[in-house]
Order: sequence, then C-alpha cells, then structure tokens
Amino acid sequence: MNRIITISREFGSGGREVGKRLADELGIAYYDKEIIQEMTEKTGLKAEYIQAVSERGMPPYAFQFAKSFAVYSQMNRNQTEILVEQQKIIKELAQKGDCVIVGRGANLILKDYQPMNLFIYADMASKMRRCREKGSKEEKLTDKEMENQMKQIDKQRKKYHEILSGFEWGKKENYHLCINTSDLEIKTIIPSLGAYIRNWFERREKQK
Amino acid sequence: MNRIITISREFGSGGREVGKRLADELGIAYYDKEIIQEMTEKTGLKAEYIQAVSERGMPPYAFQFAKSFAVYSQMNRNQTEILVEQQKIIKELAQKGDCVIVGRGANLILKDYQPMNLFIYADMASKMRRCREKGSKEEKLTDKEMENQMKQIDKQRKKYHEILSGFEWGKKENYHLCINTSDLEIKTIIPSLGAYIRNWFERREKQK
Repeated sequence: MNRIITISREFGSGGREVGKRLADELGIAYYDKEIIQEMTEKTGLKAEYIQAVSERGMPPYAFQFAKSFAVYSQMNRNQTEILVEQQKIIKELAQKGDCVIVGRGANLILKDYQPMNLFIYADMASKMRRCREKGSKEEKLTDKEMENQMKQIDKQRKKYHEILSGFEWGKKENYHLCINTSDLEIKTIIPSLGAYIRNWFERREKQK
Repeated sequence: MNRIITISREFGSGGREVGKRLADELGIAYYDKEIIQEMTEKTGLKAEYIQAVSERGMPPYAFQFAKSFAVYSQMNRNQTEILVEQQKIIKELAQKGDCVIVGRGANLILKDYQPMNLFIYADMASKMRRCREKGSKEEKLTDKEMENQMKQIDKQRKKYHEILSGFEWGKKENYHLCINTSDLEIKTIIPSLGAYIRNWFERREKQK
C-alpha cells in the first residue's frame, strides 16, 4: 500500500512548508496546486474559485470567479459534484504512489489508504509573523483584521471537514501527530520528522 | 538553561514508557517514582496516598492511607501545602540538570524553565490493550469497567491541571508535540522522537 501523508493545518502555521519539505526529505510526490490545476481543466472554472470551494465549500463571492453565468448556475446546483470530483482526483493521486497531500480533507477522503495524518498548528503571534514574512496579501491589514481573517479561514476549513465526515477538524484524536510550530524554523524539524514518519510506516507494514 | 521535557499523558497511552525510553535515548535523568519517594520522606505519608494526591488532588478514600488520624487531619487541612511541597521538589529536580518528568503538572510548574511539553494519547482500544498487557490491577475488570476507570483517572488529571493553572489538560495548544500512540510500539518511535527533541532545544538555544 502506498505511503500517504496528509497535512491539515491552521492558516499561517507553516503547514504547506512542512508538506513540501517533507516530500523532499522523503523523496516522494507533493500535491497541492496540482489538484487545483486538474480541477480547473475538468470544470472550466478559475483556479481561485476552485481553491476556495475545494477547501472550504462554496464562498459567497463565487459569482465573480465563474467564467460565465451559465457555469456559475451549474456550479451552484452542483457544488456536491465539485467535491466528488475532487475526491476522485485525490484518490487517483494516492493510487499513483507515495505522496504528501496538503489540506482538502485528504485525511478523510483517503481513509482506506491508512494515511498518516499530521495536524500543524501554532500560537497566534507565530502565525501572524509567518503571514507577514510571506508577504501575503493580508500584509496591509492591522493585526486585529489579520487575526479575524485567519480565524475565519480556519472556521471554514473546520466546517468543510465536518460536512465531509462529521469528524472534528483540529481535534488531536483525529490525527497521528500534532505539531506546534510556534517559534520554530520549519526546516530544522524536517529530518527528525521524516524519520518519525518512516518509523510509523514501517510499523504499519510489519503489522500487515 | 537545563533541558526539561515534561510528559502529560492519558492513562494507558504508554506515556510513562515514552518518558523512560526518551530519558535513556537522550542520556538524561528520569523522574517519576523519585518524586513520590521524596514526598514520602518529607511528609510521613504512604506512597500510594502521595501518588494519588500529587497527580489528582485529594481522593475521597484518603483516610485509609494516612498513618494516623492526626496525620490525616493535618493533610486534609493542608492539601495545598502538599502541592506546594511537590512544586518545590519538582523545581529542585529541574535545577539539578536535564531531565524528563512525567505527570504532576510539571509543564505548568516549570513554565519558567521553558520546558518542551509532550502530550501522549491513544484511542481507547489501544489503551485498554496496553493496560491488559501490563497486567495492572485493572486486569479482572470488564472492558466497560476498565474504560470507566481510565476515564475517571484522566478526568481527575484534567481537574488537577486546571486547579494548578486554568490551563486545559490535553488541549493541543498547551503542548509542543502531541503524539498518538494507537497501534504503535513505543520503542520504535524513540530515536526519531529523540532527534526531534534535540532539534527543538537547539532552536531554543539559538534564539537566546
């Protein structure tokens, strides 16, 4: 069985960086934008829109992303179908070989693959610092505005997760390892984290 | 500053084994029974009683453990003092050198030492299996009775923690790493976990 690592993360916790670096460390595939790309091709919708729906369900401002009103109407009716399509793509990627998948409820979608599920989190100060360093578009916001926006995104992720499964997003019992990245430089933890993950999968294979 | 690792754990999750093995792996001291021993000498109370109070506050059956009624009465009046005494001992141990301390709210008591705080947990099936394998006194209980008893102990730990600090026991935000030991053989994760911890402290020292 392929070794699948899923990464769920709080906004600003550095989860995506953990995912990319882990994939490099372990020499396996990393999927994030690739999923959006494939969805864009299959649905005719813009990447920004897919990004929003694929992790958080239909956003209220969906209309502006649709290439035409006809597409928008269809999307609105068929939101479930987008999520079904995404699940298909994620399963196809998991079948291809060992990989790291960030977000999108992959931990739930790939349950039958016995993935190792990580949750990445951090305190608010560290998350804000990380966002400002990345120079994301939130840059010009005040601290309070930024904090509200980050909380809002995480709330949507949580909700999407619960729609998928009834599982609670961020509840440690639903993950194999929960990593607090506050004040950590991500790259320093990768070698030992990679070793932990290798151990974890060796155990899984022995138990078969 | 000394490197202090605190381990909080659900009953049956293998947290104590993680602590012992980590201390071996890192070549540092391990404190668990030593704390009880010192408390016994200082207070004249039996080890079983100290064990119960020191992690969970005063148990209802405290009376049977006291060596005399006078001791019991004093204990009852001075429960806070026991906890203060324990805090003193824990701080003395932390000052001696690098160490692993299991339970007793050491993560809170030693806050000023910037310890690395781990939380060890597992699913109920794994915890029951671990308890039965250890052949603890719960052995003759039915699964349901055992589950109730385990939950009860964790509830007391949680309560004690909250008395100490208002911090929520088991909430991932209060720990640096939360490790799910379900289906894991503890010894297999120790080398990589040890490496992770070394990285973590190197970072702390660099930031000074």
